Amino acid sequence: MTLFDEPPDADTAALSGPLYRVRMVVAYDGGPFRGFAAQPNVKTVAGVMAEATRKVLGHPVTFTCAGRTDAGVHAWGQVVHFDTTRSGDDFDATGLRRSLNKLLHPHIVVRSVDVAPESFDARHSAVGRRYRYTVLNRDVPDPFMGRYVWHIEDALDLPSMKLACDPLFGEHDFSAFCRRPPDGGSTVRRVTNAEWIDTGDGFLRFEIAANAFCHQMVRSIVGTLVEVGSGRKRAGDIAGIIRSGDRQQAGQLAPPQGLSLWQVLY
Amino acid sequence: MTLFDEPPDADTAALSGPLYRVRMVVAYDGGPFRGFAAQPNVKTVAGVMAEATRKVLGHPVTFTCAGRTDAGVHAWGQVVHFDTTRSGDDFDATGLRRSLNKLLHPHIVVRSVDVAPESFDARHSAVGRRYRYTVLNRDVPDPFMGRYVWHIEDALDLPSMKLACDPLFGEHDFSAFCRRPPDGGSTVRRVTNAEWIDTGDGFLRFEIAANAFCHQMVRSIVGTLVEVGSGRKRAGDIAGIIRSGDRQQAGQLAPPQGLSLWQVLY
Repeated sequence: MTLFDEPPDADTAALSGPLYRVRMVVAYDGGPFRGFAAQPNVKTVAGVMAEATRKVLGHPVTFTCAGRTDAGVHAWGQVVHFDTTRSGDDFDATGLRRSLNKLLHPHIVVRSVDVAPESFDARHSAVGRRYRYTVLNRDVPDPFMGRYVWHIEDALDLPSMKLACDPLFGEHDFSAFCRRPPDGGSTVRRVTNAEWIDTGDGFLRFEIAANAFCHQMVRSIVGTLVEVGSGRKRAGDIAGIIRSGDRQQAGQLAPPQGLSLWQVLY
Repeated sequence: MTLFDEPPDADTAALSGPLYRVRMVVAYDGGPFRGFAAQPNVKTVAGVMAEATRKVLGHPVTFTCAGRTDAGVHAWGQVVHFDTTRSGDDFDATGLRRSLNKLLHPHIVVRSVDVAPESFDARHSAVGRRYRYTVLNRDVPDPFMGRYVWHIEDALDLPSMKLACDPLFGEHDFSAFCRRPPDGGSTVRRVTNAEWIDTGDGFLRFEIAANAFCHQMVRSIVGTLVEVGSGRKRAGDIAGIIRSGDRQQAGQLAPPQGLSLWQVLY
């Protein structure tokens, strides 16, 4: 989940000489990781990527990402930046991508590597994020997609879940759906899209786009919408839950494995 | 892969009283298993399923399957049968499916459980099998589908691979594409469909249907067709390879993780 107001993963490493900014788009299966952000003695996406990149480039790197995903959350379109001392002819973007993909196989894939302007910041330059959450709503689970969906056996009322998306649109204080920021930062976000799509065979995909997201916001919204789908809440309750600003009014947090950071917009 | 002429996994367990035949459709991620067939001291699909079914029904069971998949090969529509002493009101098909799915989660999923006529045999009653093999043909791998595809970076010539399917149709001795049966059995099979489908984003799906398949036949055919796609063989070579009956003429065996037993026809 994106914690828009948090500091980057670590201080920029003290590298001598001029630095060149590199932008990468990264996909990962979040299952084996304790989230994106580097932490000591814990397997994280940023930690594993930094170690591999250091091996290839020969100097330490520090990653800044567009959306700090939690433990078990996936990404298809995570965007990161880091600085390197390599420049021009000395920096081989295609070679770096190939070398990293060999080292990071199979759970992390670097989709693209590009030299970026010095002013580019994966986090602060982003103007929008899109997340997807997948529910598998049928009696029978799926042995291939099981790690990427929330399996719910009892039939959900999809029309009600769709109706319940309407109050989410626009700029609101989403504190009812967020972990309170440790620094007392704002929980106001602007949601530009929120919809459920029935993609067949029981797969229900929730797509949500916003300028940024608070911590656990998508999972809290999905958990609440699923309670609408199962009849424990009504679509008409959502506007009141937002207004309440009270996390007790929202539904259970949806499990992490159904969530994926899909795209970051700049 | 289907080894049509092999004996079932083991003798039917010695159960007292009348026996009732049960048919199940099973899907599995073959990655963690040493193939379908039960073997002592090895984790196999049949072994894990038999242990779970014994726990639920309270007596030992022996599974017979339509297609004995090799280590690492998946199934969406594997069909199995076993015999139980439970009958009529005492046998709860839906309850068994749910209990098994709880015990077998996440790599094996029982899609359906039905009482079958005594004469039904998952292997001998089958009149056709359909397999799918998925190639991911693009520069960038996929962190979610990586366990279910053969990733090939260099661009394949799909029209040539499609053309190369034509000679496969019909009844042939497929010994050029098979491991020689240990009992000297026939390697003549009747192929009713063989086609490549471009499903987008670099995913190329090979679908093949036949009355039955010899051991390693689909993987050997796919490996050969991929050599056509990469220019190491020509589409016009396939008919001669079949006629040769010589395994040295065929291509490399495609890796198991791209293969799935899709459907069994009765």
